[in-house]
Amino acid sequence: MKRRKRLSLEEYKSGILSGDRVGLSRAITLVESTLDSDNELAAQLIDEIYEHTGNSFRVGITGVPGVGKSTFIESFGKHVIDSGKKLAVLTIDPSSQKTGGSILGDKTRMETLSRSSNAFIRPSPSGDALGGVAHKTRETMLLCEAAGYDFIIIETVGVGQSETAVKNMVDFFLLLMLAGAGDELQGIKKGIMEMADAIAINKADGENVEPAKKAKKEYQNALHLFPANENGWNPKVKTCSAIKDDGLSEILELLEQFHKEQNETGFFDENRKDQAIHWMHQTIHHFLKRNFYKSPEILEKLSKFEAEVRNGTKHSVQAARTLLNQYYN
Amino acid sequence: MKRRKRLSLEEYKSGILSGDRVGLSRAITLVESTLDSDNELAAQLIDEIYEHTGNSFRVGITGVPGVGKSTFIESFGKHVIDSGKKLAVLTIDPSSQKTGGSILGDKTRMETLSRSSNAFIRPSPSGDALGGVAHKTRETMLLCEAAGYDFIIIETVGVGQSETAVKNMVDFFLLLMLAGAGDELQGIKKGIMEMADAIAINKADGENVEPAKKAKKEYQNALHLFPANENGWNPKVKTCSAIKDDGLSEILELLEQFHKEQNETGFFDENRKDQAIHWMHQTIHHFLKRNFYKSPEILEKLSKFEAEVRNGTKHSVQAARTLLNQYYN
Repeated sequence: MKRRKRLSLEEYKSGILSGDRVGLSRAITLVESTLDSDNELAAQLIDEIYEHTGNSFRVGITGVPGVGKSTFIESFGKHVIDSGKKLAVLTIDPSSQKTGGSILGDKTRMETLSRSSNAFIRPSPSGDALGGVAHKTRETMLLCEAAGYDFIIIETVGVGQSETAVKNMVDFFLLLMLAGAGDELQGIKKGIMEMADAIAINKADGENVEPAKKAKKEYQNALHLFPANENGWNPKVKTCSAIKDDGLSEILELLEQFHKEQNETGFFDENRKDQAIHWMHQTIHHFLKRNFYKSPEILEKLSKFEAEVRNGTKHSVQAARTLLNQYYN
Repeated sequence: MKRRKRLSLEEYKSGILSGDRVGLSRAITLVESTLDSDNELAAQLIDEIYEHTGNSFRVGITGVPGVGKSTFIESFGKHVIDSGKKLAVLTIDPSSQKTGGSILGDKTRMETLSRSSNAFIRPSPSGDALGGVAHKTRETMLLCEAAGYDFIIIETVGVGQSETAVKNMVDFFLLLMLAGAGDELQGIKKGIMEMADAIAINKADGENVEPAKKAKKEYQNALHLFPANENGWNPKVKTCSAIKDDGLSEILELLEQFHKEQNETGFFDENRKDQAIHWMHQTIHHFLKRNFYKSPEILEKLSKFEAEVRNGTKHSVQAARTLLNQYYN
C-alpha cells in the first residue's frame, strides 16, 4: 500500500471548507483511519469544522439487495441536484467488514451521479465493529456538511445490523420495498419497517404497477396498526420506478414537506438535540467497549470463554466477571 | 429500614435447593441488593446453583397498561399449575425505577395465584438502570429454576424499554393486545409487535367478540408481511378472555406446541446458547458502563456536559472524548 501523505490540521480544514472534493476525500480517509495518531488528528479536525456542520437534510435509505437502491439513488439524486442541492451519498455496509471490500460502495454503480459536480459518493468504511463504522460514517457526514453538501443520503443494506444506528443520525428514514416479490422473501428484518418515515415500493412499472398498488395498500394498513410518531408524522407509502424515473419527484416533495413541517413544529431541532445526546453516550459506550475488547488480556482469552459459555462449562455472568476482573486488575 | 440478616452462602444455597419459598425470597433479595459486598456473594451463589438451572420454559408476556396483564397471568397461571407445573412470575417495570415502588409487582394483583403453593410471584426489582434491572431479573429467574420452578413468566409493561432485554432471556414472547381500543391508542412501541411469537387479543367477550375476531385477522395479515423466523416458527394470533377464562387453554397448548417443536428441531437449545453468549457480552457492557457512570469524576460532570451538548456549545464526540480522557487518567 502506498504511504499516504499526512497533511496538517490546517491543510485538512481548508481543504474541506473550500469545498474541494480531493480535500474532502483526504479528510474522510483520515477519519476512517484505524491508527491512533490519525484518530487524534481526526478528532481535532471535527472540532475545528464543527461550527460549519448541521446545515443539511439527512436521509437514510435502506432496502434489501435487489430492491434497486443504486438505481433509486442515482435517479432520485438527480432530482435532488436539480432542486439546487449539493448531494453526498454515504454507505454503511456491515458485510464489507468481513470481505474487506465494499459491495455497496462501488462508485461505478452510480455513474451518472458520480460525474455531477454537485454530487459526492463515498463507499462504506471498513471497520472492526458496526459501532465503529457507524461513528466513522457520522463523522464523514459532518465533514460533507462542512464542505457544503446540504443533502446527505446514508445508504444501508436492510438486514437489520446498521439501521438503528442510521436512524439515530438522520432526519428522515426511507425504506425501499418491492411488490410481488413474495413478502417473506424480501428479508426485511423485524423492526426496520417500523422505523420508516416513508416506504417507497420500487420497480412499479409494466406488469408490476398493479401489484405495487396492492402492496402500497397493504403496507398502509400495516403501518396504521402502529401508533403515530411523537413528532406527529404519519409514515407514508409511495410507489415509484427508479429506472423509468417515475414517482421520484413526488418522493422528493414528500421529504421536503416533512422537512418543512418538522421545522415549523420544532421537532426537527428537538430530534437533532436528542440525537446529539444519544451520540455522546454512544461514543462513550463505543470507546469503553473498544478499549476492553482491544486490550491484550481480553483478546487472548475471549474466544476460549465464548466457547465455554456455549458448551455450558461456564455460565454467562461467571465468564463476564472473570474477564472484567482480569481487565481491571 | 430493618437490618436484614445476612446468611452464609451455604444457607442461601440450601434454602433455594430445598424449594423453600422463604429461602428463595431471601436469595432474591441478595441478588437485588445494590451493596457491592452483597453482589459478590450473589455472584458466588449463582455459581453454586447454576447446574440446577435451565430446566424451565421461559415465557415473556407484555402489553400496555389496561390490556389486562394481571388478570391474564392470574387465569393463565392457573392453567399452567393445573398442567402440573410450578410457576414463577417475575416482573420488569422500568417505571418502578423512578417511583421507587412497583406498580406491576403488587402481589395483591394476583390474589388467587399467590395463594397457590405451586406459584411464586415476585415484584420488579428497583435499580439504577434498565440494564441492571434486567440482569437482576435474569438472575432471579435462575434462582427460581434452581428452586424447582419449571414455568417462568416474565411480565413487562409494553412501552419498549425492557422488551428487548426480556426477548433475550425467554424462550417464548407473548404480546397481549385489545380489540376495538383504537389501534393507535394501544401505544405498543414500534418493534415490540415484531418480537412476538404470539399475539393474544384479550377481553374477547360480550360485544368484543366480533371486534376481536376482526383484529385477529388484521394482526395475522400484518404479521404475514414479515419474514419467517429463523427457527421456522410463524407467529400466531389468538383471541381470549382472561376474565371469563376463555381461550387460555388453547394458548397454553400453543406454547407447548412451540416448546415441543423447537426442542425437536434443536432451535430451543440453539436459542439458549445464543442467549448465553449475548448475556456474557451484555454483562460485560453493563459493568463497563456502570463503572464509568458511577465513577466520581464522571458523576460530577455528566449533567453539565449533557446540557452543553444539547445547547450546542460542545459537540457529541468532543464531550464524550473529554469525559473518557478524564475517566482513564
